Amino acid sequence: MTYRAPVADIAFTLRHAGGFAAARDRGVYGDIGDDVIDAVLAQAGRFASEIIAPLNRIGDRHGAPLRDGVVTTPPGWKEAYTGWAAAGWNGLAAPAQWGGQELPHALNAACIEMWNSASMAFGIGPVLTMAAVDALAAHGSDVLKQAYLPKLVSGEWMGTMQLTEPQAGSDVGALRTRAERDGNGGYRLRGQKIFITYGEHDLTANIIHFVLARLPDAPAGNRGISLFLVPKFLPNADGSPGARNDVRAHAVEHKLGIHASPTCTMVYGDGEGARGYLVGEESHGMACMFTMMNLARLAVALQGVGIAERATQAATAFARERRQGRRAAMGAAEQVAIIAHPDIRRMLLTMRGLTAAARAISYATAVAIDEAQRANDAAARKAAHARASLLTPIAKAFSTDIGTEVASLGVQVHGGMGYIEETGAAQHYRDARIAQIYEGTNGIQAIDLVTRKLPLAGGMVVRDHIAGLRRTVAAVREANEPGFGATATRLGEALDGLERATGFLLATLEKSMDTALAGATSYLRLYAEAAGGCMLADDALAALRSDGANSSARVALARFFATNLATAAPGLATSVIEGADAVAHATVLDE
Amino acid sequence: MTYRAPVADIAFTLRHAGGFAAARDRGVYGDIGDDVIDAVLAQAGRFASEIIAPLNRIGDRHGAPLRDGVVTTPPGWKEAYTGWAAAGWNGLAAPAQWGGQELPHALNAACIEMWNSASMAFGIGPVLTMAAVDALAAHGSDVLKQAYLPKLVSGEWMGTMQLTEPQAGSDVGALRTRAERDGNGGYRLRGQKIFITYGEHDLTANIIHFVLARLPDAPAGNRGISLFLVPKFLPNADGSPGARNDVRAHAVEHKLGIHASPTCTMVYGDGEGARGYLVGEESHGMACMFTMMNLARLAVALQGVGIAERATQAATAFARERRQGRRAAMGAAEQVAIIAHPDIRRMLLTMRGLTAAARAISYATAVAIDEAQRANDAAARKAAHARASLLTPIAKAFSTDIGTEVASLGVQVHGGMGYIEETGAAQHYRDARIAQIYEGTNGIQAIDLVTRKLPLAGGMVVRDHIAGLRRTVAAVREANEPGFGATATRLGEALDGLERATGFLLATLEKSMDTALAGATSYLRLYAEAAGGCMLADDALAALRSDGANSSARVALARFFATNLATAAPGLATSVIEGADAVAHATVLDE
Repeated sequence: MTYRAPVADIAFTLRHAGGFAAARDRGVYGDIGDDVIDAVLAQAGRFASEIIAPLNRIGDRHGAPLRDGVVTTPPGWKEAYTGWAAAGWNGLAAPAQWGGQELPHALNAACIEMWNSASMAFGIGPVLTMAAVDALAAHGSDVLKQAYLPKLVSGEWMGTMQLTEPQAGSDVGALRTRAERDGNGGYRLRGQKIFITYGEHDLTANIIHFVLARLPDAPAGNRGISLFLVPKFLPNADGSPGARNDVRAHAVEHKLGIHASPTCTMVYGDGEGARGYLVGEESHGMACMFTMMNLARLAVALQGVGIAERATQAATAFARERRQGRRAAMGAAEQVAIIAHPDIRRMLLTMRGLTAAARAISYATAVAIDEAQRANDAAARKAAHARASLLTPIAKAFSTDIGTEVASLGVQVHGGMGYIEETGAAQHYRDARIAQIYEGTNGIQAIDLVTRKLPLAGGMVVRDHIAGLRRTVAAVREANEPGFGATATRLGEALDGLERATGFLLATLEKSMDTALAGATSYLRLYAEAAGGCMLADDALAALRSDGANSSARVALARFFATNLATAAPGLATSVIEGADAVAHATVLDE
Repeated sequence: MTYRAPVADIAFTLRHAGGFAAARDRGVYGDIGDDVIDAVLAQAGRFASEIIAPLNRIGDRHGAPLRDGVVTTPPGWKEAYTGWAAAGWNGLAAPAQWGGQELPHALNAACIEMWNSASMAFGIGPVLTMAAVDALAAHGSDVLKQAYLPKLVSGEWMGTMQLTEPQAGSDVGALRTRAERDGNGGYRLRGQKIFITYGEHDLTANIIHFVLARLPDAPAGNRGISLFLVPKFLPNADGSPGARNDVRAHAVEHKLGIHASPTCTMVYGDGEGARGYLVGEESHGMACMFTMMNLARLAVALQGVGIAERATQAATAFARERRQGRRAAMGAAEQVAIIAHPDIRRMLLTMRGLTAAARAISYATAVAIDEAQRANDAAARKAAHARASLLTPIAKAFSTDIGTEVASLGVQVHGGMGYIEETGAAQHYRDARIAQIYEGTNGIQAIDLVTRKLPLAGGMVVRDHIAGLRRTVAAVREANEPGFGATATRLGEALDGLERATGFLLATLEKSMDTALAGATSYLRLYAEAAGGCMLADDALAALRSDGANSSARVALARFFATNLATAAPGLATSVIEGADAVAHATVLDE
């Protein structure tokens, strides 16, 4: 067994800590019943576990080599992708108008987690197609939508997102790719893009690139950027792929991990320039890109959850098999499964706790995104949009940070075997590392949280959210369940720290931006530990209320998180409030 | 520039936070002057930076393939090793009687850090030869010493340490390799060892294996283990390598990192059995191994420091070059070097602070080892031995944990470029990961600290050590230096936490071993953050006392550590004291 989708766990957290059930009670999800949710999750779990997961290791070893302009994906990948798209997974949350099933983003989020547990290198491809669908559906002309959306929704064609250039990474506004009007309402693109995920491959008959470029008369910076749709093959009148466009993959990067995901350098305009079609208005490309980015960031968060889940399963299975050392009263020649050792249990519980917390935060983000689109009244949609905006950077940065931390613990549980590639633990450690970087580095996420999300509605969005977390702590206290131990106390202290740091940052943002920025990463972690701890408690409380939901295990996990991980929160608050001075004074960096 | 040995920094920390100067004042180091120390460090720094460092990347790409029983090291490695040994570096701290220079282990520690900054895969080889020298010098017969020590000390031959077998990793006592008496005072070994570092290679004309094996009539477990010297080639009467012994490398592992270090599966006894020579007494092999292990553990700690230093240098250099984004008052088309961004500065300072703290702890451990051997009176030797015993697991686990953390931050500072192998940041991240595992996993170090080191002298060893840290905090307070900010307050709180956790563990060890074990890793981290923070303050205080030692940079770094990193200490204390119950109750692992 390489990966078994934890369907019951996923469904439980989606409903409770993720807030799906409560949102449905508020009318957000209409008549979507538990039977639909459970059936979809079960099918996705089977596909992920049985079809995709076995391809993960061969993908790592084969990679996606580029030869003569052609990228060859690993053996079995094209068949798996084709089957996946044919089963409708690509269009799960896409508009029904374009062939999608229009099911909740929250449900799709749970599926995206599973695709990425099965293989991060496989899972990242469709994420970009889904993001492209969102951008085109929201901003494209009717002609473009009709020509491209049906095939992007079905997955018959895949999409790419092309922002990065050598001098324009986090600083997207510095990009130089040029788009010139061709005089017939079209555009010709010339330039180079780097780090383009699935920029070239053999999974689909066509690839539709979504490219940021600058018109000749555009202002410098973000405000001069336009978004273009650039197909690899220009569609014929009947929709079939026709003439080759003037865009090609020049190289594939040799990366630390996700080897099977072709990361391409793309060249536009060797000849007459690549034909591009404007999406949205000229010089409003960043707004279109932001449409794609919220969902793409959540999808990358789910990559973090997914790799953490897979690493946890592998480490737990190994710890049950591997025998080393003994417990009291055993003979010198006996050996016990290492899962019996307290330090191994601490590692496995840390992996479980972090994974479960990141999952809960990510699902809650997805539910907020759904509610922002589906709620009946405008005020509820607005409030949900604000909540989604607040949670997205936390979900992205925390889930991907813990993805790496959990994968590293997974290596450690394996001991020496973990350092040998054949075990697979090392691949998780390598694969996980990218998710902290792409779709906006985690430092960028923290800056977004502190400078743009905290001030929303004068700080009331964050204060409302914290008030909800306080209610969870009160409920833990009222539950009077001995298994919770010091859970309420420690979570309460974590929230105290979060409020202290929040108040400090809101006051500081107006006075000293650098002070706020220096504490941003610590603040995001603090927020996630406090919120994640409360959400595990939510799940535990829900389990106590229902039968057969393994309540003692959930209570113990919430307690572990509160008393072993959320204990870091007060110290993080101190760092946020007090640490920036040392950052400012550190002349050591300027030697 | 791939690595420039920070010789001045190393010398400063060795003298001050490391305690070399104070130990010399106590007469530990005789008449070894600063001129000797500085000259040796400068030469080592040059060799590491100019000769070894440039080989690191080719080592990663070439690896150390095994073909037809022969391991080929990467191009240039044999020349570098031969030059390194010829310059006397292998015997720097070895007994003069056997050709060594008998310089302090503390000085050798600083050099070992530099070899490993230059290349971990290169640096780990000699570590094992040095450990073999220690074991043989301490436990070998005169005949064995005369036959092997001169060539092991000179580095003409290299040594290996062979403990691990498939069923015997952390649980060394479970090993099955058999040694049978040959009736002539010799032994024949049969069995298999795995994960043997530099088990086979082409760097030296002979390889001397130090192998743990079990006699037929030995008791089970650790008490039935003997240590044998098994040469690859049996020396001729004139000392030259003669007949091939019955030991061979069967395979080389495909590892996550340190590719150029051949990690071998060794087979003993295909034919008549490998000829072995007993070191120490029969069934007392573990005692001999422990002689090797303290120094070997310190050396692995220094690998953590070394890789952290190199990753920090690479990230700092990148952050000075790479331009992205802008500061206030810059135009939309301008870009600033990313080292100006507060979040980048936070990452770089975290890297610096953790590296400096780990270095200080490791050097202090080396000084204690020296004092245990060199102090004039027995009481001082005994006290120093206890201090070395206390510090060794902290140095090993903390330095290697932060080695990985710092390397991961190094990837992050590089952004997307960090995930591309050609940058080198990814290699650090891969290489660093092994040091948390070998020479006793970090979990084993934590268990050693809590169950064996804390109870030393009824807890007085740890209490004395903490009392010394308290004096540093008092000195920071008395220094009345505004640049320290809240340093004394935060370090004081960290020590409060350390004392709280120490008292709890000492009381708990007698009542509930599992409770103590569950908190061991958090306790070790707590100890290191409190002690490391105080040691950075020691260096800052020393800089304030002297001229030209860049005191404001050292004060700022100490302050950064105290207010951004040591702030985690109180929460770790809570986890130690309160977290074990959740570990014990976590039935989730037993589903």
